[in-house]
Amino acid sequence: MITISILGTGKVAKHLCNGFTAVADVKVVQIIGRNTKALSAFGNGVHTSSDFLKIEDADIFVLAVKDDAIAEVSGYLEDKKGLVVHTSGSVSMDTLSNCGRYGVFYPLQTFSKNRTVDMATVPICWEARDQADGVLLQKLGGKISEKVHHVDSEQRRALHLAAVFVNNFTNHLYYIGQQICREKGLAFELLLPLIRETVDKLADLKPQDAQTGPARRGDAGTIEKHLQQLKNSEYKEVYKLLSESIGKLYGTMYT
Amino acid sequence: MITISILGTGKVAKHLCNGFTAVADVKVVQIIGRNTKALSAFGNGVHTSSDFLKIEDADIFVLAVKDDAIAEVSGYLEDKKGLVVHTSGSVSMDTLSNCGRYGVFYPLQTFSKNRTVDMATVPICWEARDQADGVLLQKLGGKISEKVHHVDSEQRRALHLAAVFVNNFTNHLYYIGQQICREKGLAFELLLPLIRETVDKLADLKPQDAQTGPARRGDAGTIEKHLQQLKNSEYKEVYKLLSESIGKLYGTMYT
Repeated sequence: MITISILGTGKVAKHLCNGFTAVADVKVVQIIGRNTKALSAFGNGVHTSSDFLKIEDADIFVLAVKDDAIAEVSGYLEDKKGLVVHTSGSVSMDTLSNCGRYGVFYPLQTFSKNRTVDMATVPICWEARDQADGVLLQKLGGKISEKVHHVDSEQRRALHLAAVFVNNFTNHLYYIGQQICREKGLAFELLLPLIRETVDKLADLKPQDAQTGPARRGDAGTIEKHLQQLKNSEYKEVYKLLSESIGKLYGTMYT
Repeated sequence: MITISILGTGKVAKHLCNGFTAVADVKVVQIIGRNTKALSAFGNGVHTSSDFLKIEDADIFVLAVKDDAIAEVSGYLEDKKGLVVHTSGSVSMDTLSNCGRYGVFYPLQTFSKNRTVDMATVPICWEARDQADGVLLQKLGGKISEKVHHVDSEQRRALHLAAVFVNNFTNHLYYIGQQICREKGLAFELLLPLIRETVDKLADLKPQDAQTGPARRGDAGTIEKHLQQLKNSEYKEVYKLLSESIGKLYGTMYT
Protein backbone atom coordinates (compact mmCIF):
# COMPACT_ATOMS: atom_id res chain seq x y z
CA MET A 1 0.00 0.00 0.00
CA ILE A 2 1.30 3.45 -0.99
CA THR A 3 -0.24 6.33 0.96
CA ILE A 4 -0.58 9.68 -0.80
CA SER A 5 -1.23 13.18 0.41
CA ILE A 6 -2.20 15.68 -2.29
CA LEU A 7 -1.54 19.40 -1.86
CA GLY A 8 -3.68 21.47 -4.19
CA THR A 9 -7.26 21.41 -5.41
CA GLY A 10 -7.01 22.26 -9.13
CA LYS A 11 -7.44 20.15 -12.24
CA VAL A 12 -4.22 18.15 -11.85
CA ALA A 13 -5.01 17.44 -8.18
CA LYS A 14 -8.51 16.30 -9.11
CA HIS A 15 -7.46 14.03 -11.98
CA LEU A 16 -4.57 12.48 -10.05
CA CYS A 17 -6.84 11.93 -7.05
CA ASN A 18 -9.35 10.14 -9.29
CA GLY A 19 -6.54 8.07 -10.77
CA PHE A 20 -5.12 7.07 -7.37
CA THR A 21 -8.47 6.25 -5.73
CA ALA A 22 -9.46 4.02 -8.67
CA VAL A 23 -6.60 1.56 -8.16
CA ALA A 24 -5.75 -1.00 -5.49
CA ASP A 25 -2.70 -0.62 -3.23
CA VAL A 26 -2.81 3.19 -3.34
CA LYS A 27 -4.64 5.29 -0.77
CA VAL A 28 -5.17 9.05 -0.80
CA VAL A 29 -5.05 9.87 2.92
CA GLN A 30 -5.51 13.64 2.68
CA ILE A 31 -6.14 16.55 0.30
CA ILE A 32 -4.78 19.88 1.54
CA GLY A 33 -5.74 23.20 -0.01
CA ARG A 34 -6.60 26.80 0.85
CA ASN A 35 -9.77 26.80 -1.21
CA THR A 36 -12.41 25.17 1.03
CA LYS A 37 -15.05 25.19 -1.71
CA ALA A 38 -12.71 23.32 -4.06
CA LEU A 39 -11.86 20.92 -1.22
CA SER A 40 -15.51 20.06 -0.66
CA ALA A 41 -15.80 19.12 -4.35
CA PHE A 42 -13.55 16.12 -3.66
CA GLY A 43 -16.51 14.46 -1.93
CA ASN A 44 -16.88 12.65 1.35
CA GLY A 45 -14.74 9.67 0.47
CA VAL A 46 -11.51 11.49 1.15
CA HIS A 47 -10.11 13.40 4.14
CA THR A 48 -9.63 17.09 3.33
CA SER A 49 -7.99 19.93 5.26
CA SER A 50 -7.20 23.60 4.72
CA ASP A 51 -4.60 23.66 7.51
CA PHE A 52 -1.10 23.44 6.02
CA LEU A 53 0.36 23.17 9.54
CA LYS A 54 -1.44 19.89 10.19
CA ILE A 55 -0.45 17.78 7.21
CA GLU A 56 -0.71 14.06 7.99
CA ASP A 57 2.11 11.64 7.26
CA ALA A 58 2.12 9.81 3.95
CA ASP A 59 4.55 7.86 1.77
CA ILE A 60 4.36 10.46 -0.97
CA PHE A 61 3.32 14.13 -0.89
CA VAL A 62 2.09 15.26 -4.30
CA LEU A 63 2.27 19.02 -4.87
CA ALA A 64 -0.33 19.85 -7.52
CA VAL A 65 -0.19 23.62 -7.09
CA LYS A 66 0.66 26.48 -9.45
CA ASP A 67 4.32 26.59 -10.56
CA ASP A 68 5.15 29.70 -8.55
CA ALA A 69 3.61 28.26 -5.35
CA ILE A 70 5.70 25.07 -5.35
CA ALA A 71 8.64 26.52 -3.40
CA GLU A 72 6.38 28.08 -0.77
CA VAL A 73 4.16 25.04 -0.23
CA SER A 74 7.19 22.74 0.00
CA GLY A 75 8.18 24.74 3.10
CA TYR A 76 5.38 23.01 5.01
CA LEU A 77 6.89 19.60 4.19
CA GLU A 78 10.54 20.15 5.20
CA ASP A 79 10.31 17.94 8.29
CA LYS A 80 8.34 15.12 6.69
CA LYS A 81 9.88 11.68 6.21
CA GLY A 82 7.84 10.98 3.05
CA LEU A 83 8.85 11.69 -0.54
CA VAL A 84 7.83 15.15 -1.79
CA VAL A 85 7.12 15.49 -5.55
CA HIS A 86 5.75 18.27 -7.70
CA THR A 87 3.72 17.74 -10.89
CA SER A 88 4.99 20.58 -13.07
CA GLY A 89 6.43 20.35 -16.56
CA SER A 90 8.66 23.37 -16.29
CA VAL A 91 9.87 23.64 -12.69
CA SER A 92 13.24 22.15 -11.77
CA MET A 93 13.28 19.24 -9.33
CA ASP A 94 15.75 21.14 -7.15
CA THR A 95 13.08 23.66 -6.22
CA LEU A 96 12.20 21.01 -3.63
CA SER A 97 15.74 20.59 -2.28
CA ASN A 98 14.67 22.00 1.10
CA CYS A 99 12.84 18.71 1.64
CA GLY A 100 14.59 15.52 2.78
CA ARG A 101 13.43 13.34 -0.13
CA TYR A 102 12.16 14.87 -3.34
CA GLY A 103 11.31 14.30 -6.99
CA VAL A 104 8.86 14.98 -9.81
CA PHE A 105 5.69 13.17 -10.93
CA TYR A 106 4.59 14.92 -14.14
CA PRO A 107 1.48 13.68 -15.99
CA LEU A 108 1.90 14.81 -19.62
CA GLN A 109 -1.67 15.68 -20.51
CA THR A 110 -4.06 18.64 -20.71
CA PHE A 111 -6.72 18.35 -18.02
CA SER A 112 -10.12 20.05 -18.24
CA LYS A 113 -12.57 20.66 -15.45
CA ASN A 114 -15.49 18.65 -16.78
CA ARG A 115 -13.79 16.01 -18.87
CA THR A 116 -12.73 12.55 -17.75
CA VAL A 117 -9.29 11.48 -18.93
CA ASP A 118 -8.27 7.83 -19.05
CA MET A 119 -5.22 7.98 -16.78
CA ALA A 120 -3.98 4.64 -18.17
CA THR A 121 -3.05 6.44 -21.41
CA VAL A 122 -1.36 9.45 -19.78
CA PRO A 123 2.47 9.33 -19.87
CA ILE A 124 3.85 9.75 -16.34
CA CYS A 125 7.30 11.36 -16.38
CA TRP A 126 9.15 10.95 -13.10
CA GLU A 127 12.45 12.09 -11.67
CA ALA A 128 13.88 11.52 -8.18
CA ARG A 129 16.84 12.75 -6.16
CA ASP A 130 17.52 9.23 -4.85
CA GLN A 131 17.42 5.97 -6.76
CA ALA A 132 15.18 4.21 -4.26
CA ASP A 133 12.63 7.00 -4.58
CA GLY A 134 12.78 6.60 -8.36
CA VAL A 135 11.77 2.98 -7.93
CA LEU A 136 8.86 4.11 -5.74
CA LEU A 137 7.68 6.67 -8.33
CA GLN A 138 7.99 4.13 -11.16
CA LYS A 139 5.82 1.80 -9.05
CA LEU A 140 3.24 4.48 -8.28
CA GLY A 141 3.12 5.56 -11.94
CA GLY A 142 2.62 1.96 -13.01
CA LYS A 143 -0.43 1.67 -10.76
CA ILE A 144 -2.33 4.33 -12.72
CA SER A 145 -0.74 4.44 -16.18
CA GLU A 146 0.63 2.09 -18.84
CA LYS A 147 3.26 4.66 -19.81
CA VAL A 148 5.76 5.48 -17.10
CA HIS A 149 9.12 7.04 -17.99
CA HIS A 150 12.18 8.36 -16.23
CA VAL A 151 12.64 11.87 -17.64
CA ASP A 152 15.28 14.27 -16.29
CA SER A 153 14.63 17.98 -15.66
CA GLU A 154 16.06 19.10 -19.00
CA GLN A 155 14.03 16.54 -20.93
CA ARG A 156 10.90 17.49 -18.99
CA ARG A 157 11.40 21.14 -19.90
CA ALA A 158 11.68 20.08 -23.56
CA LEU A 159 8.47 18.05 -23.29
CA HIS A 160 6.67 21.01 -21.76
CA LEU A 161 7.87 23.26 -24.56
CA ALA A 162 6.89 20.71 -27.24
CA ALA A 163 3.48 20.44 -25.55
CA VAL A 164 2.94 24.18 -26.05
CA PHE A 165 3.47 23.69 -29.81
CA VAL A 166 1.29 20.59 -30.26
CA ASN A 167 -1.44 21.57 -27.78
CA ASN A 168 -1.72 25.36 -27.20
CA PHE A 169 -0.59 26.50 -30.64
CA THR A 170 -2.49 23.78 -32.47
CA ASN A 171 -5.63 24.72 -30.55
CA HIS A 172 -5.11 28.34 -31.63
CA LEU A 173 -4.94 27.21 -35.27
CA TYR A 174 -8.29 25.45 -34.69
CA TYR A 175 -9.61 28.78 -33.42
CA ILE A 176 -8.39 30.60 -36.55
CA GLY A 177 -9.95 27.88 -38.73
CA GLN A 178 -13.22 28.34 -36.88
CA GLN A 179 -13.12 32.11 -37.42
CA ILE A 180 -12.52 31.67 -41.16
CA CYS A 181 -15.53 29.34 -41.33
CA ARG A 182 -17.73 31.61 -39.22
CA GLU A 183 -17.14 34.61 -41.51
CA LYS A 184 -18.75 32.65 -44.33
CA GLY A 185 -21.57 31.15 -42.24
CA LEU A 186 -19.98 27.70 -42.09
CA ALA A 187 -20.04 25.37 -39.07
CA PHE A 188 -16.65 24.50 -37.54
CA GLU A 189 -17.88 20.89 -37.32
CA LEU A 190 -17.23 20.57 -41.06
CA LEU A 191 -13.49 20.60 -40.26
CA LEU A 192 -13.58 17.98 -37.48
CA PRO A 193 -13.17 14.86 -39.66
CA LEU A 194 -10.12 16.50 -41.28
CA ILE A 195 -8.69 17.46 -37.87
CA ARG A 196 -9.17 13.89 -36.62
CA GLU A 197 -7.56 12.34 -39.68
CA THR A 198 -4.58 14.70 -39.34
CA VAL A 199 -3.98 13.15 -35.91
CA ASP A 200 -4.91 9.56 -36.82
CA LYS A 201 -2.32 9.67 -39.62
CA LEU A 202 0.45 10.02 -37.01
CA ALA A 203 -0.06 6.36 -36.07
CA ASP A 204 1.34 5.38 -39.51
CA LEU A 205 3.34 8.38 -40.67
CA LYS A 206 5.86 10.78 -39.18
CA PRO A 207 4.66 14.42 -39.32
CA GLN A 208 7.31 15.14 -41.94
CA ASP A 209 5.98 12.40 -44.23
CA ALA A 210 2.32 13.24 -43.61
CA GLN A 211 2.58 16.86 -44.78
CA THR A 212 0.50 18.01 -47.78
CA GLY A 213 -0.84 21.34 -49.02
CA PRO A 214 0.28 24.38 -51.01
CA ALA A 215 3.46 25.18 -49.01
CA ARG A 216 4.58 21.53 -49.20
CA ARG A 217 4.05 21.56 -52.98
CA GLY A 218 5.52 25.03 -53.43
CA ASP A 219 2.22 26.08 -55.02
CA ALA A 220 2.80 29.85 -55.12
CA GLY A 221 -0.49 30.56 -56.89
CA THR A 222 -2.67 29.02 -54.16
CA ILE A 223 -0.58 30.63 -51.40
CA GLU A 224 -1.04 34.04 -53.06
CA LYS A 225 -4.81 33.49 -53.34
CA HIS A 226 -5.02 32.44 -49.68
CA LEU A 227 -3.11 35.53 -48.54
CA GLN A 228 -5.51 37.73 -50.52
CA GLN A 229 -8.50 35.96 -48.92
CA LEU A 230 -7.18 36.62 -45.41
CA LYS A 231 -8.37 40.07 -44.32
CA ASN A 232 -7.07 39.69 -40.75
CA SER A 233 -3.42 40.84 -40.79
CA GLU A 234 -2.56 38.64 -37.80
CA TYR A 235 -3.80 35.47 -39.50
CA LYS A 236 -1.94 36.59 -42.63
CA GLU A 237 1.32 36.73 -40.63
CA VAL A 238 0.68 33.28 -39.18
CA TYR A 239 -0.05 31.93 -42.67
CA LYS A 240 3.13 33.45 -44.10
CA LEU A 241 5.45 32.36 -41.32
CA LEU A 242 4.23 28.76 -41.20
CA SER A 243 4.20 28.46 -45.01
CA GLU A 244 7.78 29.75 -45.12
CA SER A 245 8.81 27.31 -42.41
CA ILE A 246 7.21 24.41 -44.33
CA GLY A 247 8.73 25.67 -47.59
CA LYS A 248 12.22 25.69 -46.07
CA LEU A 249 11.82 22.18 -44.67
CA TYR A 250 10.87 20.67 -48.03
CA GLY A 251 12.97 22.94 -50.23
CA THR A 252 9.85 24.29 -51.93
CA MET A 253 10.25 27.93 -50.86
CA TYR A 254 7.90 30.01 -52.92
CA THR A 255 9.45 33.47 -52.47
CA MET B 1 -28.55 3.79 -60.71
CA ILE B 2 -26.09 6.68 -61.07
CA THR B 3 -23.25 5.99 -63.51
CA ILE B 4 -19.91 7.68 -62.86
CA SER B 5 -16.85 8.25 -64.96
CA ILE B 6 -13.74 9.32 -63.04
CA LEU B 7 -10.99 11.35 -64.73
CA GLY B 8 -7.73 11.15 -62.78
CA THR B 9 -5.76 8.44 -60.98
CA GLY B 10 -4.49 10.17 -57.84
CA LYS B 11 -5.48 9.86 -54.19
CA VAL B 12 -8.84 11.63 -54.51
CA ALA B 13 -9.74 9.52 -57.57
CA LYS B 14 -8.79 6.35 -55.71
CA HIS B 15 -10.71 7.16 -52.52
CA LEU B 16 -13.83 8.34 -54.36
CA CYS B 17 -13.74 5.25 -56.57
CA ASN B 18 -13.58 3.05 -53.48
CA GLY B 19 -16.47 5.00 -51.96
CA PHE B 20 -18.65 4.73 -55.07
CA THR B 21 -17.99 1.05 -55.74
CA ALA B 22 -18.84 0.16 -52.14
CA VAL B 23 -22.45 1.37 -52.35
CA ALA B 24 -25.53 0.18 -54.22
CA ASP B 25 -27.15 2.24 -56.99
CA VAL B 26 -23.84 3.81 -58.04
CA LYS B 27 -21.62 2.35 -60.76
CA VAL B 28 -18.18 3.51 -61.81
CA VAL B 29 -18.24 2.81 -65.57
CA GLN B 30 -14.77 4.11 -66.42
CA ILE B 31 -11.55 5.56 -65.01
CA ILE B 32 -9.62 7.74 -67.44
CA GLY B 33 -6.03 8.82 -66.87
CA ARG B 34 -2.71 9.35 -68.60
CA ASN B 35 -0.76 7.30 -66.12
CA THR B 36 -1.25 3.67 -67.22
CA LYS B 37 0.59 2.29 -64.20
CA ALA B 38 -1.73 4.20 -61.85
CA LEU B 39 -4.73 3.02 -63.90
CA SER B 40 -3.74 -0.61 -63.48
CA ALA B 41 -3.72 -0.13 -59.70
CA PHE B 42 -7.50 0.29 -59.82
CA GLY B 43 -7.77 -3.45 -60.36
CA ASN B 44 -9.75 -5.58 -62.79
CA GLY B 45 -13.19 -4.75 -61.47
CA VAL B 46 -13.35 -1.42 -63.23
CA HIS B 47 -12.97 -0.36 -66.87
CA THR B 48 -9.95 1.89 -67.37
CA SER B 49 -8.69 3.88 -70.35
CA SER B 50 -5.88 6.27 -71.14
CA ASP B 51 -7.62 7.66 -74.23
CA PHE B 52 -9.25 10.99 -73.42
CA LEU B 53 -10.88 11.06 -76.87
CA LYS B 54 -12.90 7.92 -76.15
CA ILE B 55 -14.61 8.77 -72.87
CA GLU B 56 -17.79 6.72 -72.38
CA ASP B 57 -21.09 8.31 -71.48
CA ALA B 58 -22.01 8.58 -67.81
CA ASP B 59 -24.48 10.47 -65.61
CA ILE B 60 -21.64 12.28 -63.83
CA PHE B 61 -18.02 12.91 -64.85
CA VAL B 62 -15.84 13.41 -61.82
CA LEU B 63 -12.62 15.35 -62.48
CA ALA B 64 -10.14 14.32 -59.80
CA VAL B 65 -7.08 15.91 -61.39
CA LYS B 66 -4.63 18.60 -60.25
CA ASP B 67 -6.14 22.08 -59.92
CA ASP B 68 -4.29 23.50 -62.90
CA ALA B 69 -5.33 20.58 -65.14
CA ILE B 70 -9.10 21.00 -64.55
CA ALA B 71 -9.68 23.50 -67.36
CA GLU B 72 -7.73 21.45 -69.88
CA VAL B 73 -9.32 18.09 -69.03
CA SER B 74 -12.80 19.62 -69.07
CA GLY B 75 -12.19 20.37 -72.76
CA TYR B 76 -12.63 16.64 -73.50
CA LEU B 77 -16.12 16.72 -71.98
CA GLU B 78 -17.64 19.75 -73.70
CA ASP B 79 -19.97 17.65 -75.87
CA LYS B 80 -21.12 15.26 -73.15
CA LYS B 81 -24.71 15.26 -71.92
CA GLY B 82 -23.71 14.21 -68.39
CA LEU B 83 -22.92 16.47 -65.44
CA VAL B 84 -19.24 17.47 -65.14
CA VAL B 85 -17.89 18.17 -61.64
CA HIS B 86 -14.45 18.87 -60.25
CA THR B 87 -13.29 17.90 -56.74
CA SER B 88 -11.09 20.86 -55.82
CA GLY B 89 -11.36 23.07 -52.75
CA SER B 90 -9.95 26.18 -54.34
CA VAL B 91 -10.99 26.20 -58.02
CA SER B 92 -14.09 28.15 -59.03
CA MET B 93 -17.05 26.19 -60.39
CA ASP B 94 -17.07 28.42 -63.47
CA THR B 95 -13.77 26.93 -64.63
CA LEU B 96 -16.07 24.25 -66.07
CA SER B 97 -18.44 26.68 -67.84
CA ASN B 98 -17.34 25.31 -71.22
CA CYS B 99 -19.34 22.19 -70.37
CA GLY B 100 -23.11 21.99 -70.76
CA ARG B 101 -23.85 20.95 -67.17
CA TYR B 102 -21.30 21.51 -64.41
CA GLY B 103 -20.71 21.68 -60.68
CA VAL B 104 -18.39 20.74 -57.81
CA PHE B 105 -18.14 17.63 -55.64
CA TYR B 106 -15.52 18.43 -52.98
CA PRO B 107 -14.69 15.83 -50.30
CA LEU B 108 -13.25 17.80 -47.34
CA GLN B 109 -10.57 15.41 -46.16
CA THR B 110 -6.84 14.72 -46.45
CA PHE B 111 -6.28 11.49 -48.37
CA SER B 112 -3.12 9.43 -48.08
CA LYS B 113 -1.88 6.73 -50.39
CA ASN B 114 -1.92 3.79 -48.01
CA ARG B 115 -4.62 4.77 -45.53
CA THR B 116 -8.28 3.83 -45.69
CA VAL B 117 -10.66 6.67 -44.91
CA ASP B 118 -14.24 6.00 -43.84
CA MET B 119 -16.06 7.96 -46.57
CA ALA B 120 -19.25 8.02 -44.46
CA THR B 121 -17.59 10.58 -42.16
CA VAL B 122 -16.16 12.80 -44.94
CA PRO B 123 -18.14 16.01 -45.51
CA ILE B 124 -19.13 16.28 -49.19
CA CYS B 125 -19.46 19.91 -50.28
CA TRP B 126 -21.32 20.29 -53.55
CA GLU B 127 -22.27 23.15 -55.84
CA ALA B 128 -24.11 23.04 -59.16
CA ARG B 129 -24.91 25.45 -61.98
CA ASP B 130 -28.49 24.13 -62.21
CA GLN B 131 -30.84 23.24 -59.39
CA ALA B 132 -31.70 19.81 -60.77
CA ASP B 133 -28.00 18.93 -60.87
CA GLY B 134 -27.72 20.08 -57.25
CA VAL B 135 -30.37 17.51 -56.36
CA LEU B 136 -28.37 14.86 -58.21
CA LEU B 137 -25.12 15.74 -56.38
CA GLN B 138 -26.91 15.79 -53.02
CA LYS B 139 -28.22 12.30 -53.84
CA LEU B 140 -24.80 11.02 -54.94
CA GLY B 141 -23.15 12.52 -51.84
CA GLY B 142 -25.77 10.88 -49.63
CA LYS B 143 -24.92 7.45 -51.07
CA ILE B 144 -21.35 7.58 -49.75
CA SER B 145 -21.41 10.06 -46.85
CA GLU B 146 -23.57 11.04 -43.89
CA LYS B 147 -22.51 14.69 -44.25
CA VAL B 148 -23.55 16.32 -47.51
CA HIS B 149 -23.71 20.11 -47.77
CA HIS B 150 -24.44 22.73 -50.38
CA VAL B 151 -21.42 25.06 -50.24
CA ASP B 152 -20.95 27.90 -52.72
CA SER B 153 -17.59 28.74 -54.35
CA GLU B 154 -16.72 31.46 -51.86
CA GLN B 155 -17.55 29.23 -48.88
CA ARG B 156 -15.55 26.40 -50.41
CA ARG B 157 -12.52 28.66 -50.80
CA ALA B 158 -12.88 29.57 -47.11
CA LEU B 159 -13.07 25.89 -46.13
CA HIS B 160 -9.95 25.16 -48.16
CA LEU B 161 -8.10 28.00 -46.46
CA ALA B 162 -9.29 26.91 -43.00
CA ALA B 163 -8.15 23.38 -43.85
CA VAL B 164 -4.61 24.67 -44.44
CA PHE B 165 -4.59 26.06 -40.89
CA VAL B 166 -6.07 23.03 -39.11
CA ASN B 167 -4.36 20.37 -41.22
CA ASN B 168 -1.10 21.56 -42.89
CA PHE B 169 -0.05 24.09 -40.24
CA THR B 170 -1.10 21.87 -37.34
CA ASN B 171 0.92 19.02 -38.84
CA HIS B 172 3.92 21.34 -39.06
CA LEU B 173 3.56 22.12 -35.34
CA TYR B 174 3.61 18.36 -34.72
CA TYR B 175 6.86 18.27 -36.69
CA ILE B 176 8.38 21.04 -34.56
CA GLY B 177 7.22 19.24 -31.39
CA GLN B 178 8.90 16.10 -32.65
CA GLN B 179 12.16 17.95 -33.35
CA ILE B 180 12.17 19.43 -29.83
CA CYS B 181 11.72 15.93 -28.40
CA ARG B 182 14.34 14.39 -30.64
CA GLU B 183 17.02 16.88 -29.55
CA LYS B 184 16.66 15.54 -26.01
CA GLY B 185 16.41 11.87 -26.99
CA LEU B 186 12.67 11.70 -26.34
CA ALA B 187 10.17 9.70 -28.43
CA PHE B 188 7.49 11.73 -30.23
CA GLU B 189 4.98 9.08 -29.08
CA LEU B 190 5.07 10.68 -25.61
CA LEU B 191 3.11 13.59 -27.07
CA LEU B 192 0.41 11.53 -28.82
CA PRO B 193 -2.05 11.25 -25.90
CA LEU B 194 -1.87 15.03 -25.47
CA ILE B 195 -2.39 15.59 -29.21
CA ARG B 196 -5.40 13.26 -29.21
CA GLU B 197 -6.97 14.91 -26.15
CA THR B 198 -6.50 18.36 -27.75
CA VAL B 199 -8.73 17.14 -30.58
CA ASP B 200 -11.16 15.11 -28.45
CA LYS B 201 -11.85 18.22 -26.35
CA LEU B 202 -13.39 19.89 -29.40
CA ALA B 203 -16.41 17.61 -29.04
CA ASP B 204 -17.30 19.45 -25.79
CA LEU B 205 -15.52 22.79 -26.01
CA LYS B 206 -15.01 25.49 -28.60
CA PRO B 207 -11.31 26.07 -29.37
CA GLN B 208 -11.52 29.45 -27.63
CA ASP B 209 -12.77 27.84 -24.40
CA ALA B 210 -10.35 24.91 -24.59
CA GLN B 211 -7.21 27.06 -24.66
CA THR B 212 -4.65 26.71 -21.82
CA GLY B 213 -0.92 27.38 -21.44
CA PRO B 214 1.48 30.24 -20.75
CA ALA B 215 0.22 32.66 -23.44
CA ARG B 216 -3.40 32.12 -22.35
CA ARG B 217 -2.43 32.85 -18.73
CA GLY B 218 -0.12 35.73 -19.65
CA ASP B 219 2.69 33.85 -17.89
CA ALA B 220 5.62 36.00 -19.07
CA GLY B 221 8.19 34.05 -17.02
CA THR B 222 7.46 30.70 -18.69
CA ILE B 223 7.29 32.32 -22.15
CA GLU B 224 10.71 33.89 -21.58
CA LYS B 225 12.15 30.55 -20.45
CA HIS B 226 10.70 28.78 -23.50
CA LEU B 227 12.18 31.37 -25.86
CA GLN B 228 15.60 30.87 -24.26
CA GLN B 229 15.27 27.11 -24.66
CA LEU B 230 14.54 27.40 -28.39
CA LYS B 231 17.84 27.54 -30.25
CA ASN B 232 16.23 27.36 -33.71
CA SER B 233 15.42 30.96 -34.70
CA GLU B 234 12.57 29.83 -36.96
CA TYR B 235 10.79 27.95 -34.15
CA LYS B 236 11.41 30.97 -31.92
CA GLU B 237 9.56 33.18 -34.43
CA VAL B 238 6.65 30.72 -34.61
CA TYR B 239 6.51 30.60 -30.79
CA LYS B 240 6.52 34.41 -30.53
CA LEU B 241 3.91 35.05 -33.19
CA LEU B 242 1.44 32.43 -31.98
CA SER B 243 1.90 33.46 -28.33
CA GLU B 244 1.24 37.08 -29.27
CA SER B 245 -1.85 36.09 -31.23
CA ILE B 246 -3.16 34.07 -28.26
CA GLY B 247 -2.25 36.92 -25.88
CA LYS B 248 -4.24 39.41 -27.94
CA LEU B 249 -7.28 37.15 -28.09
CA TYR B 250 -7.46 36.73 -24.32
CA GLY B 251 -6.17 40.16 -23.35
CA THR B 252 -3.16 38.61 -21.62
CA MET B 253 -0.44 40.19 -23.79
CA TYR B 254 2.85 39.71 -22.05
CA THR B 255 4.96 42.34 -23.85
